[in-house]
Amino acid sequence: MKVNGKAYRSIWEKPGDEGIIQIIDQRWLPHKFIIEGLRTVDEVSAAIRDMHVRGAPLIGVAAAYGMYLAAITAPKGSRFDTYLIESAEKLISTRPTAVNLAWAVGRQMANMNKFYSVSEKIVSALTTARHIADDDAGQCRKIGEHGAKLIREISERKSGETVNILTHCNAGWLATVDWGTATAPIYMARNQGIDLHVWVDETRPRNQGAKLTAWELGHEGINHTVITDNAGGHLMQHGLVDMAIVGSDRTTAAGDVANKIGTYLKALAALDNNVPFYAALPSTTIDWSIEDGLKDIPIEQRNADEVRFVDGLYKHQGNCQCENEITEVLVPPEGSPAANYAFDVTPSRLVTGLITERGICLANKESIAELFPDKIIDK
Amino acid sequence: MKVNGKAYRSIWEKPGDEGIIQIIDQRWLPHKFIIEGLRTVDEVSAAIRDMHVRGAPLIGVAAAYGMYLAAITAPKGSRFDTYLIESAEKLISTRPTAVNLAWAVGRQMANMNKFYSVSEKIVSALTTARHIADDDAGQCRKIGEHGAKLIREISERKSGETVNILTHCNAGWLATVDWGTATAPIYMARNQGIDLHVWVDETRPRNQGAKLTAWELGHEGINHTVITDNAGGHLMQHGLVDMAIVGSDRTTAAGDVANKIGTYLKALAALDNNVPFYAALPSTTIDWSIEDGLKDIPIEQRNADEVRFVDGLYKHQGNCQCENEITEVLVPPEGSPAANYAFDVTPSRLVTGLITERGICLANKESIAELFPDKIIDK
Repeated sequence: MKVNGKAYRSIWEKPGDEGIIQIIDQRWLPHKFIIEGLRTVDEVSAAIRDMHVRGAPLIGVAAAYGMYLAAITAPKGSRFDTYLIESAEKLISTRPTAVNLAWAVGRQMANMNKFYSVSEKIVSALTTARHIADDDAGQCRKIGEHGAKLIREISERKSGETVNILTHCNAGWLATVDWGTATAPIYMARNQGIDLHVWVDETRPRNQGAKLTAWELGHEGINHTVITDNAGGHLMQHGLVDMAIVGSDRTTAAGDVANKIGTYLKALAALDNNVPFYAALPSTTIDWSIEDGLKDIPIEQRNADEVRFVDGLYKHQGNCQCENEITEVLVPPEGSPAANYAFDVTPSRLVTGLITERGICLANKESIAELFPDKIIDK
Repeated sequence: MKVNGKAYRSIWEKPGDEGIIQIIDQRWLPHKFIIEGLRTVDEVSAAIRDMHVRGAPLIGVAAAYGMYLAAITAPKGSRFDTYLIESAEKLISTRPTAVNLAWAVGRQMANMNKFYSVSEKIVSALTTARHIADDDAGQCRKIGEHGAKLIREISERKSGETVNILTHCNAGWLATVDWGTATAPIYMARNQGIDLHVWVDETRPRNQGAKLTAWELGHEGINHTVITDNAGGHLMQHGLVDMAIVGSDRTTAAGDVANKIGTYLKALAALDNNVPFYAALPSTTIDWSIEDGLKDIPIEQRNADEVRFVDGLYKHQGNCQCENEITEVLVPPEGSPAANYAFDVTPSRLVTGLITERGICLANKESIAELFPDKIIDK
């Protein structure tokens, strides 16, 4: 999608240098647009762990490229395979909740294992990483096509009046390779000429909505308004939200949706106000081995300082060397403890439907299985 | 309640100087404890409007003292009464949602009208302001006594295990004269030796939970943890919240509760997880003239910059003159619009009960009327 009028993906191979993968270091958005080059599996692990890149699909692709960088930087000879296994473990351990990451790394290992020579394994790793990246972009595009139909229906019901869509966190193109998941239907509907407006939950603690989704939408010229996470219920009560679309970090085979903390609260409000509530996700995000999300999805607790400190662009009144630097401020008292639960699980009963690359299904076992008969695990 | 071991109220007459009312300028909490002296009705209006003081009960008391300052600073002679009326209007216009403010100003006017001489009116204004302040502290104390019984019941059911209470925003002693409303049962229960812990919603956009409630609880030595507003639903899903207690800026005669934006979302989660959800409020907060909160309570929209900027203690890495100053950072992109809805309405069906100075009642017309038969307006 566009940044300052130029088309970008969120991760790409540096033209003319096969040893460097480039990403947008998202920690500096929206205030600074910084491109970072990654050369080793450790750099990729750090980029995932420290959230230079984030979003389930993108960290899957980043991990896939991480395995490629592992392959080209591995010691040749008998240590090569061990190094790959260690690299795979390193990448998988960076973010325990995301299922795509383990999936992408596993696919890399499986494909490389088909070959004997190092050079073939390297070619395999690069090819696989590219496939995963292109597949992701293609899947998101399809999610967009399917989801845009829902927006079009609302637009037609409203006789072309502005469709108001609420989204939480950033399930945008920055969280994927291109298009995004929750944003793909929005971009696609806009491209089809539908008049829409997006309510952007700021999404504490890391403010990915205020920082990333607002930035994306702004650069794509889409009308949007940043709101606190507290505001969505009030907006729904007053008919100011026509639908909610969120992403998913992990979805169970029965349709429970693990997503950024606070998603569950918005889903409750949507149900209470008859607002359709959709999760948009590539099927790689579905964990076919589990059904009960509340019981079976471990919720990552992150550093409490993410709650205690807020970063942004420093706007000091006066003459200071820090003016326009990105810095952080401490909000609660120095001595008050904080807790930082990163995700929550929205039970399927609150989810109107899942928008996937194959189409839209209800958030229940039967409807999901109908769309993905090839993925069902017999237990 | 205590600050650094010393007992304070949130507003008081400066000892030895009858022309000065002192408040804690809450804009600097929790990082700086600054006491401000107010001398005129304009200073009081600014203190209310710019939220040096906030919280429905406290701004009522502040407005009452504002009328006292108006009386002692008014031009003597024929302009005196006009000045009082203008001052009353000025104070009432500072915060449209709060019903206590208009109530306190009205009580001042009615009482002063009983007297003819300026000196008698001044004495009346001071006496009334003191009564309102003392009544408020007394009412909060009673709210605490009634509410503590609920906490005790949970504690007994849990065989003395820690009772986990979630609260939103600051309905603490800083929002009243003393004790607080939502916090009064907490302070009282703690004084009775009950083991408890408070989940403190940070409460975007102004972070009154993270800043004020956490500060209060810390100075009173009460175990607490600051969380994002997004986290409460997850905590409730996992049995980590035994009850929720919030305040109320305005309650209808049928039990709908207008309170800080986001309260509604927590109430939905509480119902979904069988967590009792109480609003604690002095009956002055009840608007006997309305029943349907969603229809009849106007919701204040505040400056969008409260959403866009976050202030806190500046913690720059390095050598900078701004170190440890309170400043603000811009979170979303410079060009993204934001909206700032300040309150929402929680329908009575989501409220387990109201904790008032007269006791606890259900959040419905009949139960409220039973507790306050003298307040019912025949329509």
